[in-house]
Amino acid sequence: MAQLSSDGKKKWVFSFTPGAADGTAAMKDLLGGKGANLAEMARLGLPVPPGFTITTEVCQAFFDAGKKLPDGLKSVVETALAAIGDTVGAKFGDDKTPLLVSVRSGSRASMPGMMDTILNLGLNDKTVVGLAALTGDERFAFDSYRRFIQMYGDVVLGVDHGAFEDILENFKNLNGFATDTELDADAWRDIIADYMAVIEREVGRPFPQDTAEQLWGAIAAVFNSWHNPRAETYRRLHGIPDDWGTAVTVQAMVFGNLGDSSATGVAFTRNPSTGEREIFGEYLANAQGEDVVAGIRTPQSLTKAVGGHAGETSLEATMPAAFDELTKIFGTLETHYRDMQDVEFTVQVGRLWVLQTRSGKRTTAAALKIAIDMAEEGLISKEEAVLRVEPQALDQLLHPAIDPAAENDLLGKGLPASPGAASGEIVFHSDLAEALRAKGKEVILVRAETSPEDVHGMHAAVGILTARGGMTSHAAVVARGMGRPCVSGAGTLRIDANTGTMRVGTRLFRSGDMITIDGSTGNIYAGKAKMLPPQISGSFGVIMGWADGERRMRIRTNADTPRDAQKARDFGAEGIGLCRTEHMFFDESRILAVREMICAEDEDGRRQALAKLLPMQRADFEELFEIMAGLPVTIRLLDPPLHEFLPHEDREAAQLAASLDMDLARLKSRLEELKEFNPMLGFRGCRLGIKYPEITRMQARAIFEAAANASKRTGNAVRPEVMIPFVAYRREFDILREVITEEADAVARETGVTVPYDIGTMIELPRAALRASDIAIGDKGADFFSFGTNDLTQTVLGLSRDDAAPILSTYLDKEVITIDPFVSVDQSGVGELVKVGVERGRAVKPGLKTGVCGEHGGDPKSIAFFELTDVDYVSCSPFRVPVARLSAAQAAIRRRHGTS
Amino acid sequence: MAQLSSDGKKKWVFSFTPGAADGTAAMKDLLGGKGANLAEMARLGLPVPPGFTITTEVCQAFFDAGKKLPDGLKSVVETALAAIGDTVGAKFGDDKTPLLVSVRSGSRASMPGMMDTILNLGLNDKTVVGLAALTGDERFAFDSYRRFIQMYGDVVLGVDHGAFEDILENFKNLNGFATDTELDADAWRDIIADYMAVIEREVGRPFPQDTAEQLWGAIAAVFNSWHNPRAETYRRLHGIPDDWGTAVTVQAMVFGNLGDSSATGVAFTRNPSTGEREIFGEYLANAQGEDVVAGIRTPQSLTKAVGGHAGETSLEATMPAAFDELTKIFGTLETHYRDMQDVEFTVQVGRLWVLQTRSGKRTTAAALKIAIDMAEEGLISKEEAVLRVEPQALDQLLHPAIDPAAENDLLGKGLPASPGAASGEIVFHSDLAEALRAKGKEVILVRAETSPEDVHGMHAAVGILTARGGMTSHAAVVARGMGRPCVSGAGTLRIDANTGTMRVGTRLFRSGDMITIDGSTGNIYAGKAKMLPPQISGSFGVIMGWADGERRMRIRTNADTPRDAQKARDFGAEGIGLCRTEHMFFDESRILAVREMICAEDEDGRRQALAKLLPMQRADFEELFEIMAGLPVTIRLLDPPLHEFLPHEDREAAQLAASLDMDLARLKSRLEELKEFNPMLGFRGCRLGIKYPEITRMQARAIFEAAANASKRTGNAVRPEVMIPFVAYRREFDILREVITEEADAVARETGVTVPYDIGTMIELPRAALRASDIAIGDKGADFFSFGTNDLTQTVLGLSRDDAAPILSTYLDKEVITIDPFVSVDQSGVGELVKVGVERGRAVKPGLKTGVCGEHGGDPKSIAFFELTDVDYVSCSPFRVPVARLSAAQAAIRRRHGTS
Repeated sequence: MAQLSSDGKKKWVFSFTPGAADGTAAMKDLLGGKGANLAEMARLGLPVPPGFTITTEVCQAFFDAGKKLPDGLKSVVETALAAIGDTVGAKFGDDKTPLLVSVRSGSRASMPGMMDTILNLGLNDKTVVGLAALTGDERFAFDSYRRFIQMYGDVVLGVDHGAFEDILENFKNLNGFATDTELDADAWRDIIADYMAVIEREVGRPFPQDTAEQLWGAIAAVFNSWHNPRAETYRRLHGIPDDWGTAVTVQAMVFGNLGDSSATGVAFTRNPSTGEREIFGEYLANAQGEDVVAGIRTPQSLTKAVGGHAGETSLEATMPAAFDELTKIFGTLETHYRDMQDVEFTVQVGRLWVLQTRSGKRTTAAALKIAIDMAEEGLISKEEAVLRVEPQALDQLLHPAIDPAAENDLLGKGLPASPGAASGEIVFHSDLAEALRAKGKEVILVRAETSPEDVHGMHAAVGILTARGGMTSHAAVVARGMGRPCVSGAGTLRIDANTGTMRVGTRLFRSGDMITIDGSTGNIYAGKAKMLPPQISGSFGVIMGWADGERRMRIRTNADTPRDAQKARDFGAEGIGLCRTEHMFFDESRILAVREMICAEDEDGRRQALAKLLPMQRADFEELFEIMAGLPVTIRLLDPPLHEFLPHEDREAAQLAASLDMDLARLKSRLEELKEFNPMLGFRGCRLGIKYPEITRMQARAIFEAAANASKRTGNAVRPEVMIPFVAYRREFDILREVITEEADAVARETGVTVPYDIGTMIELPRAALRASDIAIGDKGADFFSFGTNDLTQTVLGLSRDDAAPILSTYLDKEVITIDPFVSVDQSGVGELVKVGVERGRAVKPGLKTGVCGEHGGDPKSIAFFELTDVDYVSCSPFRVPVARLSAAQAAIRRRHGTS
Repeated sequence: MAQLSSDGKKKWVFSFTPGAADGTAAMKDLLGGKGANLAEMARLGLPVPPGFTITTEVCQAFFDAGKKLPDGLKSVVETALAAIGDTVGAKFGDDKTPLLVSVRSGSRASMPGMMDTILNLGLNDKTVVGLAALTGDERFAFDSYRRFIQMYGDVVLGVDHGAFEDILENFKNLNGFATDTELDADAWRDIIADYMAVIEREVGRPFPQDTAEQLWGAIAAVFNSWHNPRAETYRRLHGIPDDWGTAVTVQAMVFGNLGDSSATGVAFTRNPSTGEREIFGEYLANAQGEDVVAGIRTPQSLTKAVGGHAGETSLEATMPAAFDELTKIFGTLETHYRDMQDVEFTVQVGRLWVLQTRSGKRTTAAALKIAIDMAEEGLISKEEAVLRVEPQALDQLLHPAIDPAAENDLLGKGLPASPGAASGEIVFHSDLAEALRAKGKEVILVRAETSPEDVHGMHAAVGILTARGGMTSHAAVVARGMGRPCVSGAGTLRIDANTGTMRVGTRLFRSGDMITIDGSTGNIYAGKAKMLPPQISGSFGVIMGWADGERRMRIRTNADTPRDAQKARDFGAEGIGLCRTEHMFFDESRILAVREMICAEDEDGRRQALAKLLPMQRADFEELFEIMAGLPVTIRLLDPPLHEFLPHEDREAAQLAASLDMDLARLKSRLEELKEFNPMLGFRGCRLGIKYPEITRMQARAIFEAAANASKRTGNAVRPEVMIPFVAYRREFDILREVITEEADAVARETGVTVPYDIGTMIELPRAALRASDIAIGDKGADFFSFGTNDLTQTVLGLSRDDAAPILSTYLDKEVITIDPFVSVDQSGVGELVKVGVERGRAVKPGLKTGVCGEHGGDPKSIAFFELTDVDYVSCSPFRVPVARLSAAQAAIRRRHGTS
């Protein structure tokens, strides 16, 4: 974008002043983000302190010429600088009314903290005296001067900042000062003398007293900072090209500490806690911005009405003109930026300056209310309102949270595995958890890791804490499914379940001690923390309704129990995308029959045990079908390796042998036989049913009998979707499809009810995705695909979910990955196979129903990706359903606008 | 292909007679394989019994018309039948000189045994008397008749063949006969009467005496057999379209049992054992073909010179005219078919008939000699000679084999995991194996399964037998690498290492008992079996040389030890494609240092232990570089999960703690920490080096120091290829590349020798194949890709190699797969990712070197596939190198000819 100046050359400098600017918001490439925003604010008529931006093209020219600034820049800058001085009534380098400026970098992409900034440029031994007179605050003037010297010495002159710190520390030690605030103007003068001396010694010449020299040094230094190692690393990691360069913005400094008609403050255009339409903010009279941050003085409220501290005044009362102007500006800002703004301002001798405006941070409750209000005010569309709410933040609304205002005894941190907070007594055994729960106690189940045998204990607990396992470990997945808060992989915990103790560092906890976990942050606290209850408001329902109107994808839930199913329906789930039948097998009343089936010596033995399970499975399915009242229910056939159901310890094995009236040695040999090196890649999924079709037969029968019963009783048509897991070959699907249809036919004959049904498959192996057309083709091919992105991630990345935690933590540290691939789908690897699977399946079966039932179905980033793969639905744990509804809506909107 | 008969309609019937035929070999679609071949033989002038083929179009018309034969077929068939009779001097249905015919199916694709055949058609109560008179063998005539009735009753009339068998069994029981040969003509007459009765009872009408009715019934039955369930299943499995249909060939029966001027025999045009150019075969005078098969009479040699049994005569002596004609025919056949032929012939009253000719089976030694001789005779090209040898069969030459002539005590069967046979004493512990070996004993190591801790025992043993694990289990892979015979996954073995016993069924073996295993077949024998030594001839070298001239791909070897490397060089390996550095770690002298490294508490501790390993690794590499004398050597960095190196039992752990002077509890906690649910998908490969760069650093240093030393000493340039395993992300590669190049630079500075080197990666995860362009792009991207198809198979199929055996056996049974995917690469799944990896890698780096180093690198079918993916080389275990050289040549030739 070659901008021409009036003399036909490229325009190097873009000025801005309240009500006018050479640049616009669109010129980010040329002016950097900061310069473009300032230009925009100026154009809006906001009273921004005047200034100018030197373009990124000058930066490029600077480096092209071997770090030389182009000829002719000097006169342009001098002209622009003079104009600034005229606007604020000051003059650069003038002893009486010195103009001070800031010099900042600003590149096309945000690179926070990567490059250098210099403030208060224009101070020297003379102008500092002028500033002292002007402000009537000598201490402020000399403190500002020494800060400028320090910053300039470090950034422009290359003096190690440690040298300045040493001087200051020495001075304080020698003179018995504890904090900087104890130093007066004279003290700063002494220190300045020492600073000057160290600069002269290190650089070989004195600190520049010529303010023009100061300015040119600072401009070159900011350009040079583009190539500092920090910035280069940042660009490499974020894929920012080296040749973009940075712009330099030079802007007048304004002061809120020039007496009682000056002030500085921060304002929100609406209440960031509640979203109410009211001015909200704080200010300090006769102060600088950093005084607000430092918290030494207590700020006062802007308005008479809101948030005023008892017995205090307000900006509205003390500076009504500035307050009125600010109020008007708020209107301008909201109309222009179409969002709630967070504004920094300074009043300098009665004159209001707006330093910065940006979208304000807000609570989720406020975000919902603001989005709805703005849509109703006509400021934004409903689509935009939907886009304004961060889906992840909905968790705040659905779960109790730890009161951030309370002081809590933080013990350590694990992974935020399942949101919400909970307090309870430590318990190390699942059976005990159940027993205590029965007595009305609230317990936190603490385990090194959980296994399917802990499911009843997890149900009984109010929260789960594990020392091992990642975001998608057994504990995490099951906890999210149940909506239980969970912190997993808390590596600093040393759990000894045998002695009933847990160590964290030097602290020892025993069974029965109270702790609190926060599954939204991963924090672990000693004792019972103060909680805030979940806060579902009417706004939540409004936004969800709007979101539902925008989205293309359906949202289903992963639910194995009637409780989960009901919860998910309450949250708006449109069916069950994944019912894991094996979770029903762990129930105490069933596990023995399951074990009997596994340990049977022949098919007859298996059939006998399966016959015991049939009525239980049927009853489960009936209840699910009734709750889902005609919505689709996808039931996955038995998936996990059989040894997951078997006892792991000798004592339990002996009990089992006794229960089954089986020789212990024979039982042990069976247990041994079923052991696997890599169970994730072993005898599981459809492989079970292919070897033991009677298992599939029982499950199919339970499904169809339940569907027939539920249809009869409720009058709602039930159309079960039977899902065959872990398919790699079409023939696997064929073998089991035949078994399933045989049972469907038999049940139809026996009951007189013909239940319509679909038979489909999980796509969770790379081979299945690659051979999707084989698997889908023909009437007898798969009726639907459900992408099991958990297992697909494990196989595509070669990474076991249960073993991933330490590897992922190293990988996040070393920046191999930026996010846990079990949390947010690996789009360029796993994602390609999802795309391939959908495309190849639909190529042979255009109407093929496709969905995602991995944990990723509840992750907003992943949902945005799945929208683009054209899957029909995502399925997630009940508590993620609102997140998914909103994410899917946002993804659909962005896709329509081509901004995904 | 619509053939027109002279009257303008499609030609339905194609006749053949010695010297003339309507059809040709090219007409397989219309005449079926059998009909087309007979036509070809007739055209060649061979004295084939005359006959005719009814086309597949008639079959299609038959089904189209609801199983009705087309009008007009009758007269055409009658004419053709009359012509047959004229040629052989007989007449269909004639009482005196009855013409008997066979009626056979024959489809476009071979479907062996799937459809029906009827012999001796034309016999009835009268013609059987004529046949008896003609042959002077009443017993033969009536036996033939009852066989015909039985076959016809079963196939055409649909009488269960059990009914006939019951009658025969009853008759024998009642009359005290043990075998069929004891029955005379009268006995057969009685049985025929019973057969007739059962047919009349079952079918409701008598057995057809009208020979024309017999013929039309047989023709329709053969057509109908196209749709029998067996045939339909076969077609479904082999992808043969249902609408092809079958042809029917009707051919005169000829008889070798019409007195002393008749005979029947089998002849090879060259010696099938040695390949010598000499007529080789056997005949029986006055006999039918089945008499030769039945083995009741001892056949005699064809020639005076070859293979005659002592004191016997020969065809050459007794029937010189027929012998001369046969000799001439051999010439014709070899010239025409350009291969050694296996010929079935009959002499009927002095007249020679050739019934069948096909390529003759031969030993590998014969195959080599015949191919070379034929090429030198100008009969075939060198290319064809190379194609004539079955690569798998080369194993026969390279390993001792069990003498097939000897009687051995077969105990059971496992998987043929590593070829060759071996006898030795049973030993259940690796340490004991080593100790006994040291005393000069030959032992077979028998284990439930092997682990890396057994490697020294496997080295010490002459063979390995395991009860668990598949073709690519640890035992199998390591055994193949070492060239040790191995039978794995012998599921019927019950091994109790503690008591030192092994049960197979009811038989008990103890440590020290002698057994024999045959790793080429999977057989296990009690005792010491008689062996044939390996037989490498000059022909082997000639064919290998020709093959090397034809192939495009290079053949490297997987070798970890100097011994393996030398063996592979002897077999013609052109470099090392995979040196697994960890195999060097298991050596007794090193394992302690390895364990010390793993158990170290910090980097310093690891560095100290690594420093001990450095000189050992360097020495290993030096030796390998020297043996490979300038050929490329790919060294893979440490790959397996660390726990593989650690002790598994408490006793060993205590020993280790003592050796390391480490607290046992701390050691155990470290062991616990390293445990993984799915080690295959765990902390391994590049993940090790990313967490502990000092390991990579030591290995890189060992490589470069060794290369520098070897270069200096031998004068051969050494260019190591450093391979980073288990990469999924480019950044993993970058991190380790940096570590490796730093060491390379350091070694170059220290030694003054700059070693050229490449750094590449294993492509063994789906993500790596999909992101191949990321991984290869740029100067700092991977210099080469080596496809680790073992792990790629595990991840693409979701199948753990170590747990696969029982799953694969079910899958082979249920026809989910036709071959173990760890033996022959899954072309449509894993193969697609190999293709994708090569294509995407080369898209950004055209010269990218690619190879395959999985077990598939030694499998002919896989090699044929890899040729088509354009990889530069395959790498396999030393004993597979010749197989790979030949396979690669054949693949290249077939590719050039478009026949792959």
